Amino acid sequence: GYARLDTGRAARTGDPEVVYGAGKTPAQVVEILTRLHAAHPDRAVLATRLSAASREAVLAQLPDAVLDEVAGAATLGPLPPSRGLVTIVSAGTSDAPVAAEAALTARVYGAGVHRVNDVGVAGLHRVLAARDDLARADCLVVVAGMEGALPSVVGGLTGVPLVAVPTSVGYGASFGGLAALLGMLNSCAPGVTVVNIDNGYGAGVFAARVARNARPHEPGDRE
Amino acid sequence: GYARLDTGRAARTGDPEVVYGAGKTPAQVVEILTRLHAAHPDRAVLATRLSAASREAVLAQLPDAVLDEVAGAATLGPLPPSRGLVTIVSAGTSDAPVAAEAALTARVYGAGVHRVNDVGVAGLHRVLAARDDLARADCLVVVAGMEGALPSVVGGLTGVPLVAVPTSVGYGASFGGLAALLGMLNSCAPGVTVVNIDNGYGAGVFAARVARNARPHEPGDRE
Amino acid sequence: GYARLDTGRAARTGDPEVVYGAGKTPAQVVEILTRLHAAHPDRAVLATRLSAASREAVLAQLPDAVLDEVAGAATLGPLPPSRGLVTIVSAGTSDAPVAAEAALTARVYGAGVHRVNDVGVAGLHRVLAARDDLARADCLVVVAGMEGALPSVVGGLTGVPLVAVPTSVGYGASFGGLAALLGMLNSCAPGVTVVNIDNGYGAGVFAARVARNARPHEPGDRE
Amino acid sequence: GYARLDTGRAARTGDPEVVYGAGKTPAQVVEILTRLHAAHPDRAVLATRLSAASREAVLAQLPDAVLDEVAGAATLGPLPPSRGLVTIVSAGTSDAPVAAEAALTARVYGAGVHRVNDVGVAGLHRVLAARDDLARADCLVVVAGMEGALPSVVGGLTGVPLVAVPTSVGYGASFGGLAALLGMLNSCAPGVTVVNIDNGYGAGVFAARVARNARPHEPGDRE
Amino acid sequence: GYARLDTGRAARTGDPEVVYGAGKTPAQVVEILTRLHAAHPDRAVLATRLSAASREAVLAQLPDAVLDEVAGAATLGPLPPSRGLVTIVSAGTSDAPVAAEAALTARVYGAGVHRVNDVGVAGLHRVLAARDDLARADCLVVVAGMEGALPSVVGGLTGVPLVAVPTSVGYGASFGGLAALLGMLNSCAPGVTVVNIDNGYGAGVFAARVARNARPHEPGDRE
Amino acid sequence: GYARLDTGRAARTGDPEVVYGAGKTPAQVVEILTRLHAAHPDRAVLATRLSAASREAVLAQLPDAVLDEVAGAATLGPLPPSRGLVTIVSAGTSDAPVAAEAALTARVYGAGVHRVNDVGVAGLHRVLAARDDLARADCLVVVAGMEGALPSVVGGLTGVPLVAVPTSVGYGASFGGLAALLGMLNSCAPGVTVVNIDNGYGAGVFAARVARNARPHEPGDRE
Amino acid sequence: GYARLDTGRAARTGDPEVVYGAGKTPAQVVEILTRLHAAHPDRAVLATRLSAASREAVLAQLPDAVLDEVAGAATLGPLPPSRGLVTIVSAGTSDAPVAAEAALTARVYGAGVHRVNDVGVAGLHRVLAARDDLARADCLVVVAGMEGALPSVVGGLTGVPLVAVPTSVGYGASFGGLAALLGMLNSCAPGVTVVNIDNGYGAGVFAARVARNARPHEPGDRE
Amino acid sequence: GYARLDTGRAARTGDPEVVYGAGKTPAQVVEILTRLHAAHPDRAVLATRLSAASREAVLAQLPDAVLDEVAGAATLGPLPPSRGLVTIVSAGTSDAPVAAEAALTARVYGAGVHRVNDVGVAGLHRVLAARDDLARADCLVVVAGMEGALPSVVGGLTGVPLVAVPTSVGYGASFGGLAALLGMLNSCAPGVTVVNIDNGYGAGVFAARVARNARPHEPGDRE
Ligand SMILES: Nc1ncnc2c1ncn2[C@@H]1O[C@H](COP(=O)(O)O)[C@@H](O)[C@H]1O
Ligand SMILES: Nc1ncnc2c1ncn2[C@@H]1O[C@H](COP(=O)(O)O)[C@@H](O)[C@H]1O
Ligand SMILES: Nc1ncnc2c1ncn2[C@@H]1O[C@H](COP(=O)(O)O)[C@@H](O)[C@H]1O
Ligand SMILES: Nc1ncnc2c1ncn2[C@@H]1O[C@H](COP(=O)(O)O)[C@@H](O)[C@H]1O
Ligand SMILES: [Mg+2]
Ligand SMILES: [Mg+2]
Ligand SMILES: [Mg+2]
Ligand SMILES: [Mg+2]
Ligand SMILES: [Mg+2]
Ligand SMILES: [Mg+2]
Ligand SMILES: [Mg+2]
Ligand SMILES: [Mg+2]
Repeated sequence: GYARLDTGRAARTGDPEVVYGAGKTPAQVVEILTRLHAAHPDRAVLATRLSAASREAVLAQLPDAVLDEVAGAATLGPLPPSRGLVTIVSAGTSDAPVAAEAALTARVYGAGVHRVNDVGVAGLHRVLAARDDLARADCLVVVAGMEGALPSVVGGLTGVPLVAVPTSVGYGASFGGLAALLGMLNSCAPGVTVVNIDNGYGAGVFAARVARNARPHEPGDRE
Repeated sequence: GYARLDTGRAARTGDPEVVYGAGKTPAQVVEILTRLHAAHPDRAVLATRLSAASREAVLAQLPDAVLDEVAGAATLGPLPPSRGLVTIVSAGTSDAPVAAEAALTARVYGAGVHRVNDVGVAGLHRVLAARDDLARADCLVVVAGMEGALPSVVGGLTGVPLVAVPTSVGYGASFGGLAALLGMLNSCAPGVTVVNIDNGYGAGVFAARVARNARPHEPGDRE
Repeated sequence: GYARLDTGRAARTGDPEVVYGAGKTPAQVVEILTRLHAAHPDRAVLATRLSAASREAVLAQLPDAVLDEVAGAATLGPLPPSRGLVTIVSAGTSDAPVAAEAALTARVYGAGVHRVNDVGVAGLHRVLAARDDLARADCLVVVAGMEGALPSVVGGLTGVPLVAVPTSVGYGASFGGLAALLGMLNSCAPGVTVVNIDNGYGAGVFAARVARNARPHEPGDRE
Repeated sequence: GYARLDTGRAARTGDPEVVYGAGKTPAQVVEILTRLHAAHPDRAVLATRLSAASREAVLAQLPDAVLDEVAGAATLGPLPPSRGLVTIVSAGTSDAPVAAEAALTARVYGAGVHRVNDVGVAGLHRVLAARDDLARADCLVVVAGMEGALPSVVGGLTGVPLVAVPTSVGYGASFGGLAALLGMLNSCAPGVTVVNIDNGYGAGVFAARVARNARPHEPGDRE
Repeated sequence: GYARLDTGRAARTGDPEVVYGAGKTPAQVVEILTRLHAAHPDRAVLATRLSAASREAVLAQLPDAVLDEVAGAATLGPLPPSRGLVTIVSAGTSDAPVAAEAALTARVYGAGVHRVNDVGVAGLHRVLAARDDLARADCLVVVAGMEGALPSVVGGLTGVPLVAVPTSVGYGASFGGLAALLGMLNSCAPGVTVVNIDNGYGAGVFAARVARNARPHEPGDRE
Repeated sequence: GYARLDTGRAARTGDPEVVYGAGKTPAQVVEILTRLHAAHPDRAVLATRLSAASREAVLAQLPDAVLDEVAGAATLGPLPPSRGLVTIVSAGTSDAPVAAEAALTARVYGAGVHRVNDVGVAGLHRVLAARDDLARADCLVVVAGMEGALPSVVGGLTGVPLVAVPTSVGYGASFGGLAALLGMLNSCAPGVTVVNIDNGYGAGVFAARVARNARPHEPGDRE
Repeated sequence: GYARLDTGRAARTGDPEVVYGAGKTPAQVVEILTRLHAAHPDRAVLATRLSAASREAVLAQLPDAVLDEVAGAATLGPLPPSRGLVTIVSAGTSDAPVAAEAALTARVYGAGVHRVNDVGVAGLHRVLAARDDLARADCLVVVAGMEGALPSVVGGLTGVPLVAVPTSVGYGASFGGLAALLGMLNSCAPGVTVVNIDNGYGAGVFAARVARNARPHEPGDRE
Repeated sequence: GYARLDTGRAARTGDPEVVYGAGKTPAQVVEILTRLHAAHPDRAVLATRLSAASREAVLAQLPDAVLDEVAGAATLGPLPPSRGLVTIVSAGTSDAPVAAEAALTARVYGAGVHRVNDVGVAGLHRVLAARDDLARADCLVVVAGMEGALPSVVGGLTGVPLVAVPTSVGYGASFGGLAALLGMLNSCAPGVTVVNIDNGYGAGVFAARVARNARPHEPGDRE
């Protein structure tokens, strides 16, 4: 085969290999997803960044697969039990696909997931109203485009570990998400970490690892 | 002389020419400030970005000049009466020199000035506590380095015209103020305008023009 | 709903939330515009950056909406009375869509609007001939692509508050409007403020706020 | 005072405000450290990025302070008990100051800390020999300059949550740490998160939060 | 003709001129390939970066040409005998086209070629298992996108001359291959050289020159 | 010798080799200037970018050399007769060193030189007043920092060939002259050509070549 | 009309206004070309960067227009007599459209034009063979993409004034012509000036102005 | 110790570990050089990028060390016999330190070395005169700053494997060597590979590996 699957990854790292669908043909997506499922029959495997054609192929050829249209991703196999809580916070409606990719990934990798949408900083009351939701989480994923200010505001309100995801939402001097990325890297709130632009998958993996290893806690008893 | 002063600027634009001290010798600063004062004897003229040596020369040779140590600037001549109110909001203690340059400039150019310092978004209660101060202004100048998120937060709280000033405070991927500049240009709060990195002078000029032309108002009656 | 509308924005800032049409489906545009209109029945609400499909949907489904083809935007509801004057100056014919977006926005947000088109600095007599027009304004919006020199020239002719809008018009080393943006940020004319590339909307909001709060004046009596 | 300390930060986020020494005078460092210590007498407070002059002032005026020469940082007050384990991995000897800042911060913020130094990928046996050390951690901080490849290698060996810190070590096309930063953001190992260039402090805060909230575990029983 | 072919190149440098197909019409590709073949009838000439249309034209009009679909390239004329060994190592399945271009070029220019695919550093066992393959080569070509870490790892395992090829595989802050390019230029493994993003051709030319001039050797007897 | 002087350059191109003083020791500057003078005894040779130490060495050891303090350059040997006219226009007082380097170079390379200083576009009357001076030239060199708008304005007023020189004067988003460089490259005035940032020397060489080859003319009779 | 044509440009600068076709509709191109022709009936006016649709419209509606397919440009009206000689040198076959735009522009603006194609530096004999052609010119336009080395080589062979045009030909780290642009700006050959990427028009205008004002000369008698 | 020396590197790769002196104290340089010498007593070890203080410490404390002042480097131990020939070609006198570092490294790593200095492309006769020298080499290292055109010219004259080294020599838009780096990466001469800016060490390692493995040959018999 053209692909040398890393089937030992789950043994080494706890999380199985995944299909990165960008640039792959529908046939390749279906084949690799099938092979990964065969290697991990007892737990869901994941395919992300699926083109319209790949989604159709998955639906047609893998009747047991489940498609997440917003995330542009599919899973095959039973979801694991969830442990710990990842809360995904997003700034605007256009950030939805990235937030959905993060949410699906965290769930597939064994964490519980909660969503808080459309709470950008230009209407601050929205995120302030969600403070209790934020404090309840074991790990936060904060998704924002344009100037990417939301992680700084959230990171000043709570000490829950926070992963920021810049998105490519914006135009002009946003330079495809660069402005948001730089904003998040320079956050004045301590303890904000960052992943690549639009990388909901990476944030979801990381947050699931933090959440499923966390001690049970009550909102606010840690901070 | 080596310098062709634009002594008609006050007639054309309402605001006299100014000495930009960066890269000028102490003798040049003193000479140009003297010439500008002679051209505008009835109102203060300004010299900014003064080196330590230029400050000393101004103090020694122009006894009527007034030095602002934090702003690194000097004025010569009587301040004009003030009209309207410019409020300068800054995020961190390191942004003080830029905020001071903006404040002095706005005052020299005929506006009243109020300061709100050290209200960065990582401790949101600080800026929320200043909401009434913000609403009272005719124009806001918001100064911040690092990720430059403060203008987005302020711009969501009030409809007062808002000029954002990115500062070069930061390190690494702040790239000398670029992160803050891009953040402000991509602000999700509508109606934020931006000046060059560390350009307190430009923000002060602009804000003074807006404020001194504004109709008198009560806090909140405009929004 | 997928969108958490900020219907309190008009109360907080004086200007209602707006539909940013880029990346939204026609159905989403129509729905959000309808909801915003319901929240603000007595004053026009605005949708910008509409795709061809979204324009058609608006025309078909919202017979009371008014489309501005050049601006690529639509309004729904009665225009507010105008107060103060915003003058929109543009450098080249290709800058027309951005200038039109700024003009429509300023009008929707309550200012009077005047246009001065195609007065780029390579034919200086054109902008010099418009000097009286410039002096009459309460706020200027100056739109230019390529090297973005027009705000420096206008800013040297008048002291009216000036918001510069770089456009993505150009090629090669214009880097999608970056050259114009940097030019405007480094303007040697004092008091020029800048918004994001192609951001006619932001400039219009800001200018309307300045203009509608301005004291009535005669041309030239301020400078 | 010129500084509005955020003394509520520990209550909100679990971790007290800190002195960022860059650009502050020795007198300012001493004063703020003293004030923070007064606000948090029972637990160590931290000052980072201290100049030579600030270090001397701290030694001379705060006899109870403890200086970490490699990290360029000082603490004042008793260290908290440690909970969980942060392991700091660094690629080259020149990365030592950043690794030391991360280590000190994680310890001050309540985690246990272990160091694995000088295991760059050009001599792969070094990091392979440290595999058991890596698996024992609750959170990894991986510090590297130049091309920043170490987090990808470590992230493929283990599923422990991993924060990567790019350093400014390098020359030419490293562009002050940009190459390492981009490398880490694009890591092909899933679940790598990144902080700003040379930001050992931020990585330490984040890792401490993850580690002190982690369930006790045996090496390898999670992955 | 519109093209001044450099038919003396083989005499000057040992390797004939080549058709760079990007931006050329099918007719131009066929014509130039025919002319190059006429100038070098006894050895294969090469056309790279062929569009779908150009490939069809080559197939239809040049029945003796051989098409490499993965590389997007064609040869015309007999392959030279091979001398020395070039080993092409690639990180991910998406890097296949660039690796194939390098392999075909090296073979056309007179070297033997071996391929080692899909051995990215996130699954390190894969490249470690290929160590003997690496040592056998006279020159290595290492192809990787995203963070481009593979050359650093390979370069630490062996002293065989190593040419790194960054690919444009990735998204967001990979900036079209820039992250991989910078990573490779800053490799901490000594003796890594780099070619342009996606430049399999250039790497193949260079490696063939090194390999066909190398003394015969046994694996490992050089290092 | 460590330096292989290109003493044939005057024969090939009409202009002799020059000493680029940056990074050279005083001894090297003196030696190379002496050797160039020996190769071209009948016409002045030039050394630019001289450090303070190199200037002193030139003064002390080459009594026949003439120093231009503003340009930071020296000549040795008799100036050639002048032919044609180069006019050097500069925007601000800080641009003086670059303008002086251009002026000296053009004169040493055989053109007549005229200077028009401190006519930046923020005070447009200044450059409009110089229109006749501009029209008289055979070639214009226009020097400006910050946003670099002056060449667009001058290039719209006259058809004299115009070389623009961006300077590194500015701060923040001027990025060491990049803003001015991009501005000039994107000039909307047709026929503006550009040299490197601060490259007065290159502009002087080019302009001298144009001017000394020009037909005699009356102001305005060409346009 | 939407366009304020600068019909005084020929009087001010010697060269009439031109239609920049990018982003204009076919109807706009035809209309402006017609208006420009009416303003300058006795000499050719020019339209550049014409889309396929605009070319068809010009052919159909303006039967007197002449189309240059390679340059993507059209002229309307009689060509002026030519004076002086512009020689256009290009590096590769892909640079042809830019070279053709420069050639047509120079001819329309009154200079004689000669072409030297496909003489890139990788086959140096080609440009060396053209030395006499180069020396004969009054102004050289040198067009090259990729690394843009050709102007440095040509500029070392002759003292004829040389305008370099970087093209967007290339891939990967050519960044759309940036590599060629930077290469030309940093040319070690003295007296190279540069225009924007792909700006054959600007180079043609400039070169025509130099050439038509040049004294008649014999090849080599100037250098 | 703070440093974990990679003493197995010579066994793995054929070339021992080296001291990278930048950022190391004199004491560290002396200690590591001593330790490396102890690990490899029979062959020279190398320390590069030595500060003035480190050079003095080496001279004073390691009497058997040999200092190369131009390269800023030192060796300790007997040079190995040389095998094969590396020819180092440099463009300008300012490139000497980088060329010297490459030359010393190649010699220490077992190749014979020849130097061809100051043959920049602005005086093409110089490099043409060196053609036989170029053809004799087993590997070429071509060092150039500014626009970095020399590798393209050399690479068109010969098929000897060629490693290009961009230097930071230049100013303005050279951006610290970026222009030369991009130029070399985009070279139109096939088979040019590139190392980091100023990385003479890396080029020397690579070239030595190629040369010492090369079959003996006569000039020109390979191409
Ligand atoms: N949406 C995603 N974004 C970023 N990386 C991903 C994503 N999905 C999968 N990956 C990574 O891509 C790898 C698979 O790449 P490939 O071998 O090309 O299919 C996985 O092992 C993940 O590390
Ligand atoms: N602090 C400042 N920041 C930016 N621009 C300034 C500042 N101070 C003065 N200027 C501008 O610099 C011009 C004077 O420049 P110069 O002729 O070089 O002294 C003034 O007309 C202002 O427009
Ligand atoms: N091919 C071209 N490249 C660059 N600038 C051009 C070109 N053609 C025309 N122009 C410029 O564009 C201006 C016309 O712009 P517009 O008013 O938008 O049609 C002319 O005055 C020229 O200065
Ligand atoms: N002049 C140089 N330029 C680039 N890399 C170097 C240089 N000298 C040594 N190195 C690399 O730096 C490594 C040593 O780094 P360190 O452990 O920090 O001393 C060596 O193994 C080489 O790979
Ligand atoms: Mg929203
Ligand atoms: Mg603070
Ligand atoms: Mg126009
Ligand atoms: Mg080491
Ligand atoms: Mg794979
Ligand atoms: Mg001035
Ligand atoms: Mg060719
Ligand atoms: Mg030289």
